Amino acid sequence: MGYGLGECGVQERRLWDSGIWDPEFLGFPEDFPGILKRFQGIRGVCREHQDFPGNVRVFLEFRGVCWEYQDFPGKAPSGAAPAPFFPVFPAGIPRGIRKSRDFFPLEARDALEFQEFPESPFPKECSTMRCLARLSSKALLVLCSLLALLSLLLWTRCSHRPPPAPRPPEHPGVADSEEASPQDAPRAPGMPGSAGRAAAGPRYEEIDCVINEEQTVKGRREGSEVFLPFSWVEKYFQVYGRIAQAEGGERFEFSHSYSKVYAQRAPYRPDGVFMSFEGYNVELRDRVKCISGVEGVPLSTQWGPQGYFYPIQIAQYGLSHYSKNLTEKAPHVEVYETAGDGSGSGEWTVPKGCSLSTVWDKSRLSGVKHFSCPESSEGVSLELNNGRDFIISFDLKLLSNGSVSVVLETTERNQLFTVHYVSSTQLIALRDRDIFYGIGARSSWSTLTRDLLTDLRKGVGLSNTKAVKQTKIMPKRVLRLVAKGRGFLDNVTISATAHMAAFFAASRWLLRNQDERGGWPIMVTRKLGEGFRSLDPGWYSAMAQGQAMSTLVRAYQLTKEPAFLGAALRATAPFKLPAEQRGVKAVFMNRHDWYEEYPTTPSSFVLNGFMYSLIGLYDLKETAGEKLGKEARLLYERGMESLKAMLPLFDTGSGTIYDLRHFMLGTAPNLARWDYHTTHINQLQLLGSIDDAPVFREFVKRWKSYLRGGRAKHN
Amino acid sequence: MGYGLGECGVQERRLWDSGIWDPEFLGFPEDFPGILKRFQGIRGVCREHQDFPGNVRVFLEFRGVCWEYQDFPGKAPSGAAPAPFFPVFPAGIPRGIRKSRDFFPLEARDALEFQEFPESPFPKECSTMRCLARLSSKALLVLCSLLALLSLLLWTRCSHRPPPAPRPPEHPGVADSEEASPQDAPRAPGMPGSAGRAAAGPRYEEIDCVINEEQTVKGRREGSEVFLPFSWVEKYFQVYGRIAQAEGGERFEFSHSYSKVYAQRAPYRPDGVFMSFEGYNVELRDRVKCISGVEGVPLSTQWGPQGYFYPIQIAQYGLSHYSKNLTEKAPHVEVYETAGDGSGSGEWTVPKGCSLSTVWDKSRLSGVKHFSCPESSEGVSLELNNGRDFIISFDLKLLSNGSVSVVLETTERNQLFTVHYVSSTQLIALRDRDIFYGIGARSSWSTLTRDLLTDLRKGVGLSNTKAVKQTKIMPKRVLRLVAKGRGFLDNVTISATAHMAAFFAASRWLLRNQDERGGWPIMVTRKLGEGFRSLDPGWYSAMAQGQAMSTLVRAYQLTKEPAFLGAALRATAPFKLPAEQRGVKAVFMNRHDWYEEYPTTPSSFVLNGFMYSLIGLYDLKETAGEKLGKEARLLYERGMESLKAMLPLFDTGSGTIYDLRHFMLGTAPNLARWDYHTTHINQLQLLGSIDDAPVFREFVKRWKSYLRGGRAKHN
Repeated sequence: MGYGLGECGVQERRLWDSGIWDPEFLGFPEDFPGILKRFQGIRGVCREHQDFPGNVRVFLEFRGVCWEYQDFPGKAPSGAAPAPFFPVFPAGIPRGIRKSRDFFPLEARDALEFQEFPESPFPKECSTMRCLARLSSKALLVLCSLLALLSLLLWTRCSHRPPPAPRPPEHPGVADSEEASPQDAPRAPGMPGSAGRAAAGPRYEEIDCVINEEQTVKGRREGSEVFLPFSWVEKYFQVYGRIAQAEGGERFEFSHSYSKVYAQRAPYRPDGVFMSFEGYNVELRDRVKCISGVEGVPLSTQWGPQGYFYPIQIAQYGLSHYSKNLTEKAPHVEVYETAGDGSGSGEWTVPKGCSLSTVWDKSRLSGVKHFSCPESSEGVSLELNNGRDFIISFDLKLLSNGSVSVVLETTERNQLFTVHYVSSTQLIALRDRDIFYGIGARSSWSTLTRDLLTDLRKGVGLSNTKAVKQTKIMPKRVLRLVAKGRGFLDNVTISATAHMAAFFAASRWLLRNQDERGGWPIMVTRKLGEGFRSLDPGWYSAMAQGQAMSTLVRAYQLTKEPAFLGAALRATAPFKLPAEQRGVKAVFMNRHDWYEEYPTTPSSFVLNGFMYSLIGLYDLKETAGEKLGKEARLLYERGMESLKAMLPLFDTGSGTIYDLRHFMLGTAPNLARWDYHTTHINQLQLLGSIDDAPVFREFVKRWKSYLRGGRAKHN
Repeated sequence: MGYGLGECGVQERRLWDSGIWDPEFLGFPEDFPGILKRFQGIRGVCREHQDFPGNVRVFLEFRGVCWEYQDFPGKAPSGAAPAPFFPVFPAGIPRGIRKSRDFFPLEARDALEFQEFPESPFPKECSTMRCLARLSSKALLVLCSLLALLSLLLWTRCSHRPPPAPRPPEHPGVADSEEASPQDAPRAPGMPGSAGRAAAGPRYEEIDCVINEEQTVKGRREGSEVFLPFSWVEKYFQVYGRIAQAEGGERFEFSHSYSKVYAQRAPYRPDGVFMSFEGYNVELRDRVKCISGVEGVPLSTQWGPQGYFYPIQIAQYGLSHYSKNLTEKAPHVEVYETAGDGSGSGEWTVPKGCSLSTVWDKSRLSGVKHFSCPESSEGVSLELNNGRDFIISFDLKLLSNGSVSVVLETTERNQLFTVHYVSSTQLIALRDRDIFYGIGARSSWSTLTRDLLTDLRKGVGLSNTKAVKQTKIMPKRVLRLVAKGRGFLDNVTISATAHMAAFFAASRWLLRNQDERGGWPIMVTRKLGEGFRSLDPGWYSAMAQGQAMSTLVRAYQLTKEPAFLGAALRATAPFKLPAEQRGVKAVFMNRHDWYEEYPTTPSSFVLNGFMYSLIGLYDLKETAGEKLGKEARLLYERGMESLKAMLPLFDTGSGTIYDLRHFMLGTAPNLARWDYHTTHINQLQLLGSIDDAPVFREFVKRWKSYLRGGRAKHN
C-alpha cells in the first residue's frame, strides 16, 4: 500500500473548489472522463493556471489533496495512456515536494501554493509505524543472532579475506522503519565500508560509482547490474522525476523535460484561437503587479519593480482572453441591478445620511441608480452573496470623488477582505484587509469589469519586489457592493468570466498608446546580456509589434472599427528600420532579414520573438487584403525565408538555442529552457499550418523528440 | 571479495609479452612506476595501439589478464590520481565484456582481441560456488520457514490489503548465486509484482520507473531515493561505464565519453611532434589493408574494399612515425649481415644447388652477399632467431625474379608462418601459412624495411571486405631469412622500430604522386551524405593537401632537399580554387573562406579537416619564409579568421558538430562522435599554442568540460 493516501500522511483539509472551471475550458473533454474513471472521488479543480504559453497547470482535488493534472489542454488522445496525476503535495514524500517545486519553471513556482509537510513521511498514527512499534523485539533478537551466525559461517567458508563485520540484512521490518524514520531517511543503508565487496554479501550491495574520475556516488549493485541514485542522475543530466501515485500504489515517473507541446486542433486563423493562449493566464504570473484600475490592463514588473506597461504582456493578456472566449462556453451571468427594469435580484441597503434613487439617463436611454452619500458614511450597499463566480462588472459615472467597494469572504478563516475601486489614479494599495485600486475620475459613463480573484490576490501579495508574494488566500463568496460619494450605477453583474472585456481593454490600450512612429515604446532599460549594449527606455520590439498586430486585427474583425486595422498597419513601420534608427530589423550575414524581439547591438536574433512577429505580420496581411496588406505580406515573406534558412542554427541536436549570441559574440550557445523549447515547437506547428514547407513538419517532429530524450545522430 | 581475480573466472593463459614496448614510448614515464606500485605483478604490455588520433589504447598483462591502461600518452600528472586500469577482459563479468567492446569507437573494435567468456561469471570451480553448494539445505529450510512466518506476521499486521505471496529475501547465499548464475543474471530479483509497494516490504524494493510516459524500467527504491539501472541510463544518455578493479576490490567507473584529450607538452613547431600523432598507429587500423611492398605506404579500404592509396592516410602514416621518432628512444638494432666487415652475427645455410658469396659492389663501395639459387630450391637462409624485435630491414638488388622470405614463430601453438617478399607487383596474398607481398623488380639497390608484426597480422586477417579480419596471432620469434633467385643482399638487421624509414616512404610517395595541379587526387568516389553530390574519383582534399604539407615540410627540414619544399609550395594551388574548378575552397555566406576536407556541392564545412589544413599552411609559411611562404601565409590568415568567427556554429552546448550540413541542407546537426570532439579540442589546443587569441583558450576549456558532462547555461 505504500503511503496509503487514506491512511497515512494526509491532513484532511478542504481545498477551494472553483466554480470557474469546467473540463471543456481546457479542451480535454475526451480525456477528462478517463481521468475520473481512473481516479474515484475527484472533488473538482483546486485551481488552474498557465505559467508560460505552453505550460498549463491544472490542479484537481482528490482525497483532500490537491494534485496536478499534468497533461496539456486540448491534447488529442493519440492512443497515449491517459495522463497521470503528479502530486503537487505528494503526501509523505518530502523529497517529492522539493521535486514538484523544481519541476516548475521559475516564474511558476511562486504562483503555486505549496503546503510543506513535516519532514516525517509517516505521521505517528500511521498504521505501518504502529505495527512496527508493536513488533516483538525478542523475536527479532533470536532471528538476529541466528542470521549473524549464518552469515559468519558463509563468510569463513567463502571468503579468503578477513571477514568484514557482518551486518544483518535480514530485518525487513526494522530496516524499513529505520529507512522511513526521518532521521534515517537521508543516509545510505548502514553497511560496513567493505560490504560493497562482501564475498557472501547480500543480494544487492553498495558500490562506489566513480563519475568521470572526479566524484564518487554510492550506487547499488545486483550481479552485473549497477543502479545509480536518481538524486545524482537528476542533477548530472538535468532531468526530472518523482515518486508518484498510480493505480494500486506508487511508481517513479521520469521526465526528460517539464514542458509540454500544445496539440493544435485546427489550422491557424487570424480570427481564431491564438496558438496555445486559450490556456494561458497572464494575470496569474507573479511578475504581473496587478491589473490597472485606470487602464484595465496588467502592469509588468519583469525588468523593474516600479512596474510598467509592457505592450507584449498587454497583447498577450488580450489574446489569451480572446482565445478563452472562443474555447470556453458562455458564462452564467447573475444580474443584481438594472435600474431599467426590475430584473435585478439585488437588495439595496441605504444607511442614514445616504440617498439612492432610480433616475432616467438620457445618454443611455435607460433608468440608472443614482447614489449619494458622504465618504464618511458606510455607503449604500447592494447585497450580492455569490459563492460561485468572481468577476464583477458594473457601469459607473461619478459626479464627485467616490468609490465602489466589494466585500469578500475568503478562505482565510473568518476574514473579510474589501476591494475598493476609488476615483484616484493610485495603482494599488493594501491596508490591513482593505485593498485599493484607483480607477480614475470616471466622470462619464464607463463599464468597470474586475476579476475579484486576481484583485484580491494581487492586493494581499503586494510587494516592492519584482514578484508578487505568494499567498494561499482565495475568495469564497462575494458578499456585497458598497458605493460612496455621488454618482450613478447600472448593470451590476457577477459572472464566471468576462473575457471580451479583458480583450478590448488590451486592444484599446494598444490604440491609445501607439506612438507616431507606429510603435509601442517600452519604457524600461533592457540589458539582454554580457556583450550587448543595453536598450534605453523607449525601444521597440518586433514581438510587441507583432503581438499587437494579432490583437488589433482580431479587434478589427469583431468591431470593423477602422482604427484597429489602421493601428495594425502603422505597426509595420519599425520592421523597415535597423536598430540604429529605432527599428527592429536586423540582417544575418548580409543575407537574411530578421525582426528582433530585442533590437540589440550587436543583433541577437531571438527565435521565439521573431516567430511571434511573423505570426502578427501574417494576421495583418491576411486581414488587410492584397492592397493594404502589401507591406505586411512582403515583410512576412522575407521573414519566413530567413526563418526556413536559419532554423538549423538553433538546433543543438538535443534541444534548441534561444538566440544567436554565441555566433554574434563568440561565446557559448545560450540554450533554450524547456518551456522556450516548447514555445519554439508550438510556433513552428502554427506556422506549419499556414505554410506547408516540409521544414516545419521535420523540425517539429525532431524538436518534439528532444523533449523525450531524443537526439540527432552523430557521425 | 567480489569476483576474486585469483580465485574465480580467470583461465590462466600466457599473453604475448612484447619487447617493442617501453614506458617511454607512450610518454608517461612518470605515471608508469605509479601503476606498477599500485598493481603488483604486471608482466608487461600485451599490445598498444591508437584507433584514432587522440585515442590511444595500452594493454598491460596482469595476473594473466590483459588490462587496458586507460590514460593518454604524455598526459601530465596534473595532480590527477594515477589512471585506473579498465579490464578489457573483465574476468567473470559478461556484461563487462560487451561493455568494453562498446567502449571503443567502431574502427577500434576489430583491432581488439576479445576473448569471450562463458556466460557464467563463476566457473564451476569458483570458491563462492563451492561453499554455496556445500551450504546445508536444512539450515536454509529452517531459516526459510522462520522468516516466511515473520514476513507473513508483519504483512497481516501492517497491510490492509490481502497479502501478496511473501518472498524470502533472507537467503543471501542463494539469492546471490541466483543473481550470478547465467539463467538468472538478466532477470530482476524475484519479487511478486506488488512487492515494490509492500507496506512492510524490504528497505530495498523494486519500483517501476516510467520513462517519459513511454517505457517502464525496473528501478530500486530505498526510502526516498530511487536507483535507476545503468543498463538503461547507458543507452538513454549514451554514456559509458563498467565494473572495474581498484585497490581492494571493485568499483563502477562511469565515463561521459570514451575519448581523451591530448595533453600538449610544448608549443607546436613545424619540425616537432605533430599534435598527438606520437601515439597514433595508422597501420593498426583495420581499414588499412596492408603496407604496400612496392610503395612502402599503407593502402586504405576506408571507402572501397579494392583498396586505394589515400594521401591523408599516407601523410598521417609519415607524421605518426616522425613523431614517434622524436619521442621514443633510439631502438636497439641487431645486425645479422654486413658483407663489408665481419660484424654480422648471422649464420648462413647454403643447400645443394645454391651458391652464396661475398662480392665487391662498386656502386656501394662495399662488399655485399651474392646469392643464387633456383626458385625450386629451399633457398639460402640466414639464421636470425630474434624473439625481441620485429622490424626487419635489408638492402636488396635482384638480377632475376626472386624473393626474400622471413620465417616466424607465432603465438599460434607450433605454427610457423612465412612472409614472402617477392619480385612481383602483387599487393598481398595468403596461402595456408604463407603470406606474400610483391615488392616490384628491385633490379637496382634499395632498402626494404618491413614491420613483421603488421605484415603477419594483415596477411592472416586478409579479406575482401573493407575491414581486415581480427586475429589474435602475434609473432613471437623471427627464426630466419631465406633468399631465392639471383641477386645481392646487404645490411640485414632487426630492430624494435624504424620510424624514419616509414616517414620517408610516406614523404617520397607524396613527391612521386603529386599531380601537375599541385594536388594529390583521391581515386575513390566519396558520397559525404544524403543531399550532397558525390565526389568523383580524382577529387582533392584540403586535409590531404595540408597534411602532405606538414609531412613534406618536415622531410625538407631533415634533408634540405628542395623537392620536398617545392612540392609543399605547389600544394597550395587547390586552396585558391572553388570546388567547381576542382579546388578545395568554399566561402561561408559570402564572407568566410574555408578549406574543405570534402569539396562537396553544397559545401560541407567539415571542421577537423579544415583545422588540419590550417596546420599544414602554418607549417609551410613558417618553413618557406617571408617570400616563398607568402601565399601560404595569406591562406593561413584568411582561414584562421574564418575559424575564429565560425567556431561557435560547431558548439551544441554539450558537444560539437562535425560539419555544417544542417545549415547547408536544412537537416539535423551532424553531431561529432566523441573521438572527433577530442580531435577538435586537440587541434584547437595546437592552434592556441601558435595564436594567442582568447577564443582558443575559451573553447578548449568549454569543449573539454563537455567530455565530463559539462553543459552550456540555458536562458
